[in-house]
Amino acid sequence: MAVESGRARTLTHVDPAEVTLQSALDALADPVRRCILRDLAAHPDWTRPCGTFDLPVKKATASHHFSVLRSAGLIEQRDEGARRLNRLRRPEFEAVFPGLLTATIDREAD
Amino acid sequence: MAVESGRARTLTHVDPAEVTLQSALDALADPVRRCILRDLAAHPDWTRPCGTFDLPVKKATASHHFSVLRSAGLIEQRDEGARRLNRLRRPEFEAVFPGLLTATIDREAD
Repeated sequence: MAVESGRARTLTHVDPAEVTLQSALDALADPVRRCILRDLAAHPDWTRPCGTFDLPVKKATASHHFSVLRSAGLIEQRDEGARRLNRLRRPEFEAVFPGLLTATIDREAD
Repeated sequence: MAVESGRARTLTHVDPAEVTLQSALDALADPVRRCILRDLAAHPDWTRPCGTFDLPVKKATASHHFSVLRSAGLIEQRDEGARRLNRLRRPEFEAVFPGLLTATIDREAD
């Protein structure tokens, strides 16, 4: 699993094809993580730095949520200068878990 | 919420329309509960008594799982003599959470 040292150069990602349904559901069954995913779904890829999400949690907790989403094959991240940019891995995740992401985030905020 | 006394005559059910996405995901994010749902999906309504499911848990734990599934609007139960029969509320649940149940249980056993 991901081992990072602060703002690591090498972010560990997990391919959705390697993700179990259990991990996917665990990742999706958290309201803060669904908030992140909905936000990403509503914006073009790589346009949302981590610091710009309006989340009701502290920075360290938010970092944990982003890490869980990477481990579940739901997001991709890359560092650009001081910013960590994000992309929703919608097509890859959809290919492995058809309908699951859509059923989970394409609703009114819950 | 459901208050039951042993094999109660009145089983408390929750309509899927009253279920939050969070409750639905919490219910689905458990492998034993998905096992129950897959089993029900594979058999005609009302043909599976609780005691006939092949679950890796004790009876009291299984009862808890059935109760969670009722509370999440996923199953309906009724007592018939000594047997408690089950029905997957697939159409009702599907109407409220389109695609979610299918995405979760129509896969190889996970």
